[in-house]
Amino acid sequence: MSKKWSSLFYVLIVTGLGAVIYWIVQKGHTLQGHHVISKAVGAAGAEQDSFTLFKDAFHHNLTEPLAILLLQIIVIISFARLFGFLFKKIGQPAVIGEIVAGIVLGPSIIGAYFPDINNFLFPVSSLVTLQFISQIGLILFMFIIGMELDLKAIGKQAYGAVIISHASIIIPYALGMGLAYFLYNTYAPDGISFLSFALFMGITMSITAFPVLARILQEKGLTRSRMGAMALTCAAADDLTAWCILAAVIALVKSGSSVSVLFTIGFSLAFVLLMLKVVHPMLEKLGNVYTKKQKLQTPIIAALFMILIVSSYITSVIGIHALFGAFIAGVVMPSNINFRKIVIDKIEDVSIILLLPLFFVITGLRTQIGLLNTANLWITFGWVLLVAVAGKFGGSTLAARIVGQSWKDSLSIGVLMNTRGLMQLIVLNIGYDLGILSPEIFAMMVLMALVTTFMTGPALDLINYLIPEKHHLVEHPGNVHANAENSTVL
Amino acid sequence: MSKKWSSLFYVLIVTGLGAVIYWIVQKGHTLQGHHVISKAVGAAGAEQDSFTLFKDAFHHNLTEPLAILLLQIIVIISFARLFGFLFKKIGQPAVIGEIVAGIVLGPSIIGAYFPDINNFLFPVSSLVTLQFISQIGLILFMFIIGMELDLKAIGKQAYGAVIISHASIIIPYALGMGLAYFLYNTYAPDGISFLSFALFMGITMSITAFPVLARILQEKGLTRSRMGAMALTCAAADDLTAWCILAAVIALVKSGSSVSVLFTIGFSLAFVLLMLKVVHPMLEKLGNVYTKKQKLQTPIIAALFMILIVSSYITSVIGIHALFGAFIAGVVMPSNINFRKIVIDKIEDVSIILLLPLFFVITGLRTQIGLLNTANLWITFGWVLLVAVAGKFGGSTLAARIVGQSWKDSLSIGVLMNTRGLMQLIVLNIGYDLGILSPEIFAMMVLMALVTTFMTGPALDLINYLIPEKHHLVEHPGNVHANAENSTVL
Repeated sequence: MSKKWSSLFYVLIVTGLGAVIYWIVQKGHTLQGHHVISKAVGAAGAEQDSFTLFKDAFHHNLTEPLAILLLQIIVIISFARLFGFLFKKIGQPAVIGEIVAGIVLGPSIIGAYFPDINNFLFPVSSLVTLQFISQIGLILFMFIIGMELDLKAIGKQAYGAVIISHASIIIPYALGMGLAYFLYNTYAPDGISFLSFALFMGITMSITAFPVLARILQEKGLTRSRMGAMALTCAAADDLTAWCILAAVIALVKSGSSVSVLFTIGFSLAFVLLMLKVVHPMLEKLGNVYTKKQKLQTPIIAALFMILIVSSYITSVIGIHALFGAFIAGVVMPSNINFRKIVIDKIEDVSIILLLPLFFVITGLRTQIGLLNTANLWITFGWVLLVAVAGKFGGSTLAARIVGQSWKDSLSIGVLMNTRGLMQLIVLNIGYDLGILSPEIFAMMVLMALVTTFMTGPALDLINYLIPEKHHLVEHPGNVHANAENSTVL
Repeated sequence: MSKKWSSLFYVLIVTGLGAVIYWIVQKGHTLQGHHVISKAVGAAGAEQDSFTLFKDAFHHNLTEPLAILLLQIIVIISFARLFGFLFKKIGQPAVIGEIVAGIVLGPSIIGAYFPDINNFLFPVSSLVTLQFISQIGLILFMFIIGMELDLKAIGKQAYGAVIISHASIIIPYALGMGLAYFLYNTYAPDGISFLSFALFMGITMSITAFPVLARILQEKGLTRSRMGAMALTCAAADDLTAWCILAAVIALVKSGSSVSVLFTIGFSLAFVLLMLKVVHPMLEKLGNVYTKKQKLQTPIIAALFMILIVSSYITSVIGIHALFGAFIAGVVMPSNINFRKIVIDKIEDVSIILLLPLFFVITGLRTQIGLLNTANLWITFGWVLLVAVAGKFGGSTLAARIVGQSWKDSLSIGVLMNTRGLMQLIVLNIGYDLGILSPEIFAMMVLMALVTTFMTGPALDLINYLIPEKHHLVEHPGNVHANAENSTVL
């Protein structure tokens, strides 16, 4: 048929059916009797000023839950990117800026000076959803952290790394418990036993932030140095150990009885064994297929997601934490680097760019720096900081020196292990949710995490300045370098 | 220092500090006076049976919101994958299975026969979070749909495709409005004007599911045929037109006045122009850099996310729908195929495997097939189905024949355009949220969407069987084939 006929058809159909539609609408007005009386009355009153009507609708749209969530995401990501950028300019890793952005958006700054903005942007009713979404983000993030952990690399350097790692945990742990002894009566929330409080304080003193550490080493070009490889391995061993201790502490706090916690620990061990001895070998076979292929099929991705979520669910109902399950799920992924890279690529951006900043803001909303309003509280904070640095930096340096590192490398390792970063924030939020940490202690600990992370870069520079020495380049163990590259944002 | 000394250090430090920790714990017990009285009493009563304590904690953990959310995700994804697999076995696209899985998990099947399971798995308090997360999933999904839309391909085939597309919208639209005239008094919810109801019924009759259609063509190996390319282009033009009409209808329903809606439409047009004429050219320049590079930098990904969320937010507060903004954001992405592929790769799996099934279940939880419990209601459903098929299939076939396609191709295009798939479900949920669709109409429409999608494959086979003819292979327009490949899951 010719183009002319087609055009005629088009015009006919559009005008004809347009007329039909108009006729139906006119006819329909006679139908609506009882249906719309209430609305019609309401509309009639305001029909005079239709722009007012539009404005009312607009104001209503502004307060709809989905609109608020979208605005929150916009504000949070903008702040996170902006502060991340600014902190990078002053030579700090972007992640510190993102954490600071969260605190700025919370009651400490915006909430204190612009309460209206705060009430509009973060109404209490919206926080539950925000927290859920940030939890999903953390689960994906811990999954990535688990994947970036290279068990084999730890095995290779086992001797020195494990000694440094364990010493760098137990020394600050003991100091943290000692500190807890002095803080308990004044700062522990009611109903929390000394044991729970002290064990948790120990954890907060001994955590290391593997991703931030990897990022700092990468920025300073130290990833391939002997010291850098050693520090990365120690931090990985630290992560593993600290999360196991944390799981036990959570079990203890939740069950409230030191006998029933044994069941929890028993089940947890059984679960970890199952993951390492049954699930891991199965996945390993799968991974070997993907040494060259660049695209994972949908069913495989779905299966990996399922392992992640099921693992998180099991650890959550056993009574340790969902994040521990996510971490273990990452650890048991096929060790094939190519495979891990593909999987990390799939979830990295959504979780790190979109969801992780939400977590920082949840943390910031809980951090009330304003609570630290007496000299006494700041003195306490000083002690917390001192114990944290003395324990972690001191302990790691000492251990590194004893296993035979040079003074310069020992000091550098000590400084690096002292980086708390966002792993600390994750632990602090768990403690806050469990009711172990009071808002005052929580605020102090967040500040301590920021200060210890902030001091890492400058302290490394200082060491380099004081003890000039050439770096010994060594062939780094396979995964470690890839890891640092993956942690591009943190 | 020698290995011996290091080991000695290790043993000393672990045992020594272990002892210190033990001592602190013992000492700490004397501290806890008032702090833990309540807990100590509670624990003392139950200490006899520590396994009971563990069981209690376990039961408590099961009902924690995060645990419920994780379990929901596990069950939903398992069902979606299982049903998707089964439907593929019987030659249907997996997405129908996933939608059916959602209905099975809702009140129609599991809720009706196992109410306890339903109450445990989907407590009312958990639905808000589930819905928010599924909304985020839909936003990402509509973003992908927008990116898979190839404006240039529509332009090239503009003449025939636009006529078919518009005819295939306006014919079922007019029929749908006529149907609305008969359904209004019985089925429209109170307070909804005839105009809103009828305009919305028109939309539900005239929507086409671009992704499902692409998937079916791909499975039948027709993507490269002339007919397939034409159908894909028509469906894309359909999507664009239908969403614009939908945006106007939403604006009308929300403002409740046909004058103030003009403001909404005005702002929407201004926004779309801004996106197409200002944002798109800027992004286009960015895209040209990525013809070869395989990795997008973090700031760019963050910027793209921001465009997506800001666009969704703006359309949401203007009073059309956040999903329209997500769609437009996808449309204005750089047209460079490589760039779009990278971006789609980043978000496809998380959104389609993890989040989209949550949306199907939200839909399923709202679909009460049990409401259709009288012969009358089923007769009404029969009319709905008849009008839907007659309008969309009939209209598209007629238009395709008039613009010069063969009978066989015309019939095939008609069948393909009749596929409602999940785009229909998205529209239905918007109507349900706005209060335009009553639960009965909602259930009928969901069924209609399923039936029309289900019939597509067999009807195509039937046409091939009745009118055997060779396919004319043509060089397909660049993007279209890539699109079908991208839509691997739907």
